[in-house]
Amino acid sequence: MKNQAILTLGILILTLNLFSCKNGEKGSIESSSEIIAPQEHPKLILTAQGVQEIRSHLGTLPIFDNTLKKVKEEVDAEIQLGISVPIPKDYSGGYSHDRHKRNFIALQKAGVLYQILEDEKYAQYVKDMLMRYEALYKNLPVHPKTRSYARGKLFWQCLNDSNWLVYVSQAYDCIYNYLTAEERKTLETNLFRPFADFISIQNPQFYNRVHNHSTWGNAAVGMIGLAMGDDALVDRALYGIKNIEISANAKDNDGGFINTNGKAGFFANLEEPFSPDGYYTEGPYYQRYAMYPFLIFAEALQNAKPELEIFEYKDSVLIKGVNALINLTDRDGDFFLLNDAQKGMSYHNSSLVSAVDIAYHFGGNSPELLSIAQKQDQVTLDDAGLAVALGIKRGKAKSFIKKSIELSDGAKGDEGAVGILRSGNIELVFKYTAHGLSHGHYDKLSYALFDKGVEVVQDYGMARFVNIEQKGGGNYLKENTTWAKQTIAHNTLVQNEVSHFEGKYDIGSQHHSNKYIFSVDIDSVQVASAIEENAYPNTKFHRTMVAIKDSNDEAPYILDILKVESNKPNQYDLPFYYLGQIMQTNFNYTKLKVPQILGKSNGYQHLYKEASTIANGENIKLTWLLNNKFYTYTAATSNKDEVILARIGANDPEFNLRTEPTLILRKKKTTNSVFASIIEPHGTYNPISELSVNAYSSIKQIKVVLDTLAYTAIEIESIEDKIWLFVMSNQNNSKEAEHKLRINNHEISWKGAYVLKELN
Amino acid sequence: MKNQAILTLGILILTLNLFSCKNGEKGSIESSSEIIAPQEHPKLILTAQGVQEIRSHLGTLPIFDNTLKKVKEEVDAEIQLGISVPIPKDYSGGYSHDRHKRNFIALQKAGVLYQILEDEKYAQYVKDMLMRYEALYKNLPVHPKTRSYARGKLFWQCLNDSNWLVYVSQAYDCIYNYLTAEERKTLETNLFRPFADFISIQNPQFYNRVHNHSTWGNAAVGMIGLAMGDDALVDRALYGIKNIEISANAKDNDGGFINTNGKAGFFANLEEPFSPDGYYTEGPYYQRYAMYPFLIFAEALQNAKPELEIFEYKDSVLIKGVNALINLTDRDGDFFLLNDAQKGMSYHNSSLVSAVDIAYHFGGNSPELLSIAQKQDQVTLDDAGLAVALGIKRGKAKSFIKKSIELSDGAKGDEGAVGILRSGNIELVFKYTAHGLSHGHYDKLSYALFDKGVEVVQDYGMARFVNIEQKGGGNYLKENTTWAKQTIAHNTLVQNEVSHFEGKYDIGSQHHSNKYIFSVDIDSVQVASAIEENAYPNTKFHRTMVAIKDSNDEAPYILDILKVESNKPNQYDLPFYYLGQIMQTNFNYTKLKVPQILGKSNGYQHLYKEASTIANGENIKLTWLLNNKFYTYTAATSNKDEVILARIGANDPEFNLRTEPTLILRKKKTTNSVFASIIEPHGTYNPISELSVNAYSSIKQIKVVLDTLAYTAIEIESIEDKIWLFVMSNQNNSKEAEHKLRINNHEISWKGAYVLKELN
Repeated sequence: MKNQAILTLGILILTLNLFSCKNGEKGSIESSSEIIAPQEHPKLILTAQGVQEIRSHLGTLPIFDNTLKKVKEEVDAEIQLGISVPIPKDYSGGYSHDRHKRNFIALQKAGVLYQILEDEKYAQYVKDMLMRYEALYKNLPVHPKTRSYARGKLFWQCLNDSNWLVYVSQAYDCIYNYLTAEERKTLETNLFRPFADFISIQNPQFYNRVHNHSTWGNAAVGMIGLAMGDDALVDRALYGIKNIEISANAKDNDGGFINTNGKAGFFANLEEPFSPDGYYTEGPYYQRYAMYPFLIFAEALQNAKPELEIFEYKDSVLIKGVNALINLTDRDGDFFLLNDAQKGMSYHNSSLVSAVDIAYHFGGNSPELLSIAQKQDQVTLDDAGLAVALGIKRGKAKSFIKKSIELSDGAKGDEGAVGILRSGNIELVFKYTAHGLSHGHYDKLSYALFDKGVEVVQDYGMARFVNIEQKGGGNYLKENTTWAKQTIAHNTLVQNEVSHFEGKYDIGSQHHSNKYIFSVDIDSVQVASAIEENAYPNTKFHRTMVAIKDSNDEAPYILDILKVESNKPNQYDLPFYYLGQIMQTNFNYTKLKVPQILGKSNGYQHLYKEASTIANGENIKLTWLLNNKFYTYTAATSNKDEVILARIGANDPEFNLRTEPTLILRKKKTTNSVFASIIEPHGTYNPISELSVNAYSSIKQIKVVLDTLAYTAIEIESIEDKIWLFVMSNQNNSKEAEHKLRINNHEISWKGAYVLKELN
Repeated sequence: MKNQAILTLGILILTLNLFSCKNGEKGSIESSSEIIAPQEHPKLILTAQGVQEIRSHLGTLPIFDNTLKKVKEEVDAEIQLGISVPIPKDYSGGYSHDRHKRNFIALQKAGVLYQILEDEKYAQYVKDMLMRYEALYKNLPVHPKTRSYARGKLFWQCLNDSNWLVYVSQAYDCIYNYLTAEERKTLETNLFRPFADFISIQNPQFYNRVHNHSTWGNAAVGMIGLAMGDDALVDRALYGIKNIEISANAKDNDGGFINTNGKAGFFANLEEPFSPDGYYTEGPYYQRYAMYPFLIFAEALQNAKPELEIFEYKDSVLIKGVNALINLTDRDGDFFLLNDAQKGMSYHNSSLVSAVDIAYHFGGNSPELLSIAQKQDQVTLDDAGLAVALGIKRGKAKSFIKKSIELSDGAKGDEGAVGILRSGNIELVFKYTAHGLSHGHYDKLSYALFDKGVEVVQDYGMARFVNIEQKGGGNYLKENTTWAKQTIAHNTLVQNEVSHFEGKYDIGSQHHSNKYIFSVDIDSVQVASAIEENAYPNTKFHRTMVAIKDSNDEAPYILDILKVESNKPNQYDLPFYYLGQIMQTNFNYTKLKVPQILGKSNGYQHLYKEASTIANGENIKLTWLLNNKFYTYTAATSNKDEVILARIGANDPEFNLRTEPTLILRKKKTTNSVFASIIEPHGTYNPISELSVNAYSSIKQIKVVLDTLAYTAIEIESIEDKIWLFVMSNQNNSKEAEHKLRINNHEISWKGAYVLKELN
């Protein structure tokens, strides 16, 4: 043993010389991804070498020491409280669910504390609780709650059981040497192995898929396999269960297909849902959730089986995934709402703390990640966290500057993308992805707009209050299907009051939108453009969103051009989910005495129509106030377009929905058309000084001056009588193509797919 | 002159010895309220002596230097922009209004900068702008906008013209010696004197009242009088215009009576609306607004006419007023919403900066005020601000700890009060005042509840967007009368769907509620109780609010007992304006397909009924989530009580109202009854960890176990089966009275008006 440890240290020092070892620094945890981990315990997230390093740095690394102090307080409080291992009974939010969840978190932390602090009380606590679980589990039936397609034992779904095992494997690894052989045998025979078999072999519909559920399952089985030294389990984790037949039509609770053509196991889950840019097709909320098992298992594999080179897999897709996730947050670190997602989730979530630390430690020590770790203000108590703490201590942190970025979707990166335009304080998230598996929404070419980290034009997110038991057990509410997933709940086009792909997952999951342009080199005119041709058969819509900074003084505004072409006349609805209170409209409307329900189905049944008017072909303007800021929406209309002011909340018998407003621009009996509008942040209100600044829009008019198959041209006139022309080539997105056009006596020529030109 | 200055300094030093002079400190601005101001310029808010002191401390007092830097930047930017004195045209929020407002602020600041920095560019700027105003004003007609009962010339109302003169007097005072005698004569003859006459002699209906409008008018006339050395104007300011007849029925735009029985002038305005506790009867929002002219004029009088001893007037009511105002703020410094008030106004408002600095300087150097000044992070650039900056620099600041407090209303303190209970993170504001002049609401015995500075059970405030021109010119909206002032818009009792005093100011202004108990010595049981006998003839309601802290671990909760007695059966509605989203109710309700308008008038026409049920005599519970915190309302009901879930927003054609929810408990055909309920903050939700903590109420049941003329007893049972009994003596509020009662086999005896007793 001793010889091996010395050998390891030798390799470590050698490796470090290749990287960052300066000024005679001796073997350090930094850049240690090349360490060949010793085959001893701990070996998952901690290594024998890492533990030595951590102990030697205690008291010298504030971020690590503070985290340690907090974790110690938490675990000490749990120990003080005493162990409780209740009979499983509740859905999420209920006592037994929450208690078991708290238990696995406490176990993982106690294991780590034992290693770092060498205080046996923590090992004793882990051992005692594991023995209680052993006693409970050996005769435990399936969980009494029946809602899940894959019921667990400790929890109502195998997913949560897998969470438990991912954490508990780490605890077991930490106290492995503390236990007698006899004790280990008891735990492995009565608890861990049957537990691993239950969530895999006995629940292949859960385990053998490409889905975040399966990733948790794979990591759980794999990590306990590594901890126990059971290669068969590790193999099952990496490659799935062989020779399993699952019906092609079987679906999970969210309506997702279970059969993934035999693709299963950790590698398959790395292969399929991640794009080459690291975007996870379910969206950032679930990517955040899935990143923990992906990365923690990868870390364990790297430590225990470095020969797999897991972090280099698929051109380092795991590391890219962390980078993508950070780019999918607003200014404050909150995730953008793509597909099912709860508002308020951010990179401060503990799974992102792991992700950032692991990506730093195993992904080349990017100094930008250190600045995110500083914002998180905590690290993981393991080798990765130590590396981050050392990096920060040594002053290596650099700002992570989030820029405009396009993240492709699809395993090969050819199934559309998310385009994020960042300009001034504005962040626009434009979605032209694939469906997003069973958590996808029917919202092709939708978008949301943020101003200084505040959502101004919203994506509703999901209809769910995660872990609030009073609201449907904390699970998805029925309004998630009837409202939140439907197209009308989003800022995108609805044809004939039917959702994209008829709201059918079977259809939607076969298609994706297509990128057209993503051009952000010039800060003052940034363009994202994409096309959707499958949401409605024989209808194509092409949306172009432009972030325009007119001058340095003023806030940027968004130009939104949505061109639709069909083979027959349709009704087109384009909702605009502004958040805040109406200050003024430039149009007269009739407010209804009593709201009317807007429609019968496809989400329309959840909207109350509060007011409406018929447009006269001039611009409509709506100015609203949110968070003491003024915003204006200015839209070109055609004569007889209907303008509907509506509010969410109809057919909501349990007040599950938020009663927020929308404006719907409706074109009836229209075959081809263009929706052109501008969203403009322009002013502020101060309730203390009671002063309004720039309370009025600076846009006098927006006009569609040309619309052919080949070109769409929009004229924008400011209140200072400046006139701008934006022209889009609809059929040729080449950067090299040269164009020449005559519009209203102006001769315009340009190179590339679009041009913005001042006319006067 | 020189001799006088030396003499002044001598007196100053003498005075200081009596107060705080230590360690051989020499004559300092601190404690200088005894200075006899020299009869030279400046003499209003700055004195020759003060200016010397300020100059000598420049660069050594961070809070003063930072304010100076900011003010200099602001004024430099204005100078850079150039002078604009537009023809008056707009309502508030419009260009001409805002520009003139910015001008008077810039003038005041530029004057001060000239004195402090001795840079003539500031004097030049003031002079140039004043000359522009002189040129404009001499032929200026009355303002074109006609809505005001007292139209101004620069602004649409004399009120704003008075604002202008209060500020500009200070600017004039600062550059008085910079101007030639000729220039002064031009300004005084063509601008200041006609201006002062216009807002006083030509608008007695504005000037000669007891009202915050008149206070501004008085201060304006008085300050320009002091600046010009015109004692006739000062006299008019202090005592009003003599021999003016105003119709007894004349009213202002807010419906307030104009005739105040000949009471007029600054002294009358000090006498009438302030209670001996310093509470201003219109409420804190207007007190904040009125404090500036009160204090700035008082400061000028103290400097120029110290023999008036203005700060000692009425037992130092002005200083008490500042203390009352600070006590009328929540944890974050935001004012409680009493009567007409806009949310978000706080002690960070510039008028409170003046108020705090002046109260510190002229009111005995209370070290607690220094901590408020630190939070404000700015000081006034004058003698008072210097005193504060010196106090802070010398480490004298002490925390201003806001405690439970009762502030009496009425000139003599015998017209009811505001009771504020503070317990843990909770602040309860209970209103049992007089009407509050024309800004009063019909909300006897109403309340609002704050948790850590967040309003949880709300007072709607006013229906107005101050200075947002798009919303009715920034003025009061018609919904202020039809909704915000009405009783149903508040958390208090409505009889037969009619507002208190029939919603008539003529009646309401003649009455006030009466204090019954305010007992806050024991932190864990704090009681405020009051009675209203005039809101409805022959109906008496008696409300008792108790802040109870059950144990140290848990948040305090509020017990609310509202006892009503009448001579006939009535319908009683008790609304509960919780803010947030419903998580759960313990009762089944029928949600309407489409909301119904709740009633025809008195504010009911603005409420949509969304759902309702008939209570079965058991408790009703409603748990809601606000700002990631859980709250529960638990109310005892009688069989057949109606429970209505409603929302604001009906008959609101311009979306002027906020669509917020309420629960109304309705008792029909009831003569005498008790509404008993508990409001309980109990848990938190974390959207990052997605964990709920204490999501459920700890109250199992609340029950009215006794209700006679003499006593009301409420039993409270916790989920841990602890039972508490609260008994109230309804007719004897003596602290000394001894009571003995038998309730449900419990013999209870106590001393004082109430008792809270654990039964098991």
